[in-house]
Amino acid sequence: MPSNDIRDVYRQLVLKLEERSRLGGVMGVMHWDQEVIMPKGAADARAKQMAALAGVLHEKSINPRVGNLIDKLTASGTDEFTDAEWCNIREAKREFDLETKIPKELVQEIAELGSRGHQVWAKAREENRFEDFAPILERFISLKTKWAEHAFPDLEPYDANLDIFERGMTMERLSPIFDYLKIELVPLVRSINNSDRKPDDSFLEGDFPIDKQEALGNSISRDMGFNFDKGRMDVSVHPFCGGGHPTDVRITTRYRTNNFIESLFAVIHETGHGLYEQGRMEDSLDLPVSEPLTMAVHESQSLFWERMIAQGKSFSIRYIDKFREVFPGFLKVASADKLFKAINVCRPSFIRVEADELTYPIHIILRYEIEKAMFDGTLMVKDIPEVWNSKMEKYLGIKPSTDTLGVLQDVHWSGGAFGYFPSYTLGAMYACQFYNKMITDLKDVPGRIEQGDFACIRKWLNEKIHQQGRLYSPDQLAKKVTGKALEPGVFINYLKTKYNAIYGLN
Amino acid sequence: MPSNDIRDVYRQLVLKLEERSRLGGVMGVMHWDQEVIMPKGAADARAKQMAALAGVLHEKSINPRVGNLIDKLTASGTDEFTDAEWCNIREAKREFDLETKIPKELVQEIAELGSRGHQVWAKAREENRFEDFAPILERFISLKTKWAEHAFPDLEPYDANLDIFERGMTMERLSPIFDYLKIELVPLVRSINNSDRKPDDSFLEGDFPIDKQEALGNSISRDMGFNFDKGRMDVSVHPFCGGGHPTDVRITTRYRTNNFIESLFAVIHETGHGLYEQGRMEDSLDLPVSEPLTMAVHESQSLFWERMIAQGKSFSIRYIDKFREVFPGFLKVASADKLFKAINVCRPSFIRVEADELTYPIHIILRYEIEKAMFDGTLMVKDIPEVWNSKMEKYLGIKPSTDTLGVLQDVHWSGGAFGYFPSYTLGAMYACQFYNKMITDLKDVPGRIEQGDFACIRKWLNEKIHQQGRLYSPDQLAKKVTGKALEPGVFINYLKTKYNAIYGLN
Repeated sequence: MPSNDIRDVYRQLVLKLEERSRLGGVMGVMHWDQEVIMPKGAADARAKQMAALAGVLHEKSINPRVGNLIDKLTASGTDEFTDAEWCNIREAKREFDLETKIPKELVQEIAELGSRGHQVWAKAREENRFEDFAPILERFISLKTKWAEHAFPDLEPYDANLDIFERGMTMERLSPIFDYLKIELVPLVRSINNSDRKPDDSFLEGDFPIDKQEALGNSISRDMGFNFDKGRMDVSVHPFCGGGHPTDVRITTRYRTNNFIESLFAVIHETGHGLYEQGRMEDSLDLPVSEPLTMAVHESQSLFWERMIAQGKSFSIRYIDKFREVFPGFLKVASADKLFKAINVCRPSFIRVEADELTYPIHIILRYEIEKAMFDGTLMVKDIPEVWNSKMEKYLGIKPSTDTLGVLQDVHWSGGAFGYFPSYTLGAMYACQFYNKMITDLKDVPGRIEQGDFACIRKWLNEKIHQQGRLYSPDQLAKKVTGKALEPGVFINYLKTKYNAIYGLN
Repeated sequence: MPSNDIRDVYRQLVLKLEERSRLGGVMGVMHWDQEVIMPKGAADARAKQMAALAGVLHEKSINPRVGNLIDKLTASGTDEFTDAEWCNIREAKREFDLETKIPKELVQEIAELGSRGHQVWAKAREENRFEDFAPILERFISLKTKWAEHAFPDLEPYDANLDIFERGMTMERLSPIFDYLKIELVPLVRSINNSDRKPDDSFLEGDFPIDKQEALGNSISRDMGFNFDKGRMDVSVHPFCGGGHPTDVRITTRYRTNNFIESLFAVIHETGHGLYEQGRMEDSLDLPVSEPLTMAVHESQSLFWERMIAQGKSFSIRYIDKFREVFPGFLKVASADKLFKAINVCRPSFIRVEADELTYPIHIILRYEIEKAMFDGTLMVKDIPEVWNSKMEKYLGIKPSTDTLGVLQDVHWSGGAFGYFPSYTLGAMYACQFYNKMITDLKDVPGRIEQGDFACIRKWLNEKIHQQGRLYSPDQLAKKVTGKALEPGVFINYLKTKYNAIYGLN
């Protein structure tokens, strides 16, 4: 095909991709609105509105004319296209294939089960009745296995589910990584539990007016570089980062008056996500090439700021005076060192979302092992609670007294999201690996943090990660940024060094 | 066609109409978000998102399968359908015809001119340069004339424009009505201006904290019956009533700290619109039959509460103690009677949106006469400012010193909305006629208002108007509710009686 013609085909595809991105942005705003703003009496109508919009997005995705454009472009073998352009074509193809390969009835059944599943799960969790949720879970495993056979016929069903959240990740790759983490972290947590040295964190409790917490969160988010001309900060039941566009990024937090650290760290975490969105390549904001790469890489950005920066000692040094100024009376007796130790207390607990840096990966590994076994047929749904509880006891030394505190705690399975959990810990490992490289690229990072000079950090993340969009696979990106693909050893070394010091081990 | 088959055709149409209504609701939320919530840096992206969604709505509207369903239904001549079902079919046909009759290029040119026109107008208004806006206006009249020839080939072009906002209304009907209003109101305003008696309204100025204004507005909106489980109240530059659904009705106001009446009356006005939306027939919320009838009837509901209720003496009696309680010190010296007179001061001014009850219709008539003359070719665009100013002087005795205070003040023409203005005064007349009937249907309305018993009033409006949806034409509705079609004499009598008393005329 002559060069002009193939470029015209590409331009037509771009128009379609932009339209899809814009309608996706509308969905983003509707979702944010639902969680933050919507009057509760509108729930039924909203569900129908979002279903109608999802229907439109699906229609646009399976438009045969788009398939035709993609076929022409992939067959062209032309040298006409830049890496970014090829990325758009590749991403368009991945989405088109995924959307068209699944029979419509299966898509509908999964959507319906997801909506019903959420209600059943919420009630079952409230009433501690796993047996009510079990049939939903069974049906979902069966549907998601079928789905996998259509979506990625060459992959194991669970690998196909993993691929949606972390493209390219497989059990073959992941299992040894998680086994390694488990072997290292389970004894470390046990040593900490047995240690006599327990940092005091009781002084984190107090009385913190919400308006002051909000102003503080806002100001630290701004310090990190969040652009409030292209974003907002609000309140929702569960903190999240959403919105409709890289120029309309909306983070949320929630407030408790007896503890400000929780809410502040949610702001920092979501700001990390938000900076990734706001930092996308400007000339392709409505195209796939600029989109955040995977769930794990997204999480690497939130955890970078939350764990590697805000849970570091330099951050406590930077902000302890500010905290004292905002909340007079609070922290009067504490030093920056005490604050640092208090916000890094390791304490095994039942609930994943409340877990600390060290026990969090163990919660994830437990879920990964269970999901894997559900899909390969070696674990029956009815047996999950028992397996859950015995793994909790084995790995963390605690046993949930109810399924509400155990297998029923997470929303993910109620919507059929299997293979999602590993992203959290993959993100933590990437964050650590990136940080490790950054401190060799930039001079005196701890000193800069103590000075509140976050601009260079944000700039480094922006150039190395945000601006790379979807040009590379996660492993390629890690290699490009750090010289090596994912390296769990970096993460383990970091955790050991940090927690051995805090707890005076070895 | 057998009965079962034609009912199946109807059911298919209902699915299409519901989908359209739901996507329209999404647009409503996006629009509200843009005005109330959106970060300013998102403006460009939002315009593109809304254009993409408008494109989808248009595609859905011109779907030939919908046209086919409508043809089958209108040709069926069956007795199968209820009035409500026929209404849905009729409304679907009106919309389908309107959307399909206009050539795509014309639709696009109008949309583009509207978006450019708004920018040009805003700048021209700021800089007082009518000559910059004139070419936009000229082009719009030409395009909207062409549009009218396609949309309603049997109507005069300006009548076609009127029909969009007030179906069935024509110049032949409207001109004598407006002439009558003019003959009655212009001398009345002149007498008031020449009267020695001037009610004192200086005490309305003061210092009113915004949080207290907000709580007051919220509480009065609630008194009127606005359901905050299915709605919200927020702040925007221009007050409006929007949202995504009858279960998600969002009103806005704006606050000035030196006057609380303005903001409160905006809340009352928008609550009137909101009650109409929240009061739609529950079994058809996503179908045209339940939709508010016309712009004028919508305005009749807001003006009913603002003018007929809140500007009445009973309302001042009801709330003066509450106002004193919320704003201690304020109104200490004023009585309910003084408050009533102060909020009914008549004072000719340049700006329509700030005009009082008596001069407002004159602003509208001036615009109507100019629009009519623009479309019949008797007024050239370049001559509009002069005509505007001389009419202002003739009708209201004041002459704007700039076009910013004159012809450039309103946004409507910048988007091509000709024929919209009359709705405001038609709405005021309907409101008055409805009120006049209501006080004969319900016993002791003034006494009920003094007691704060608004439930019976809301119920009356709900049964008589809200629940009627689009079953009737505006005239039919007026006749059904009051026994007569639109009767301007009722409006004039009301105004004369009220203002003669306040100003001690005759």
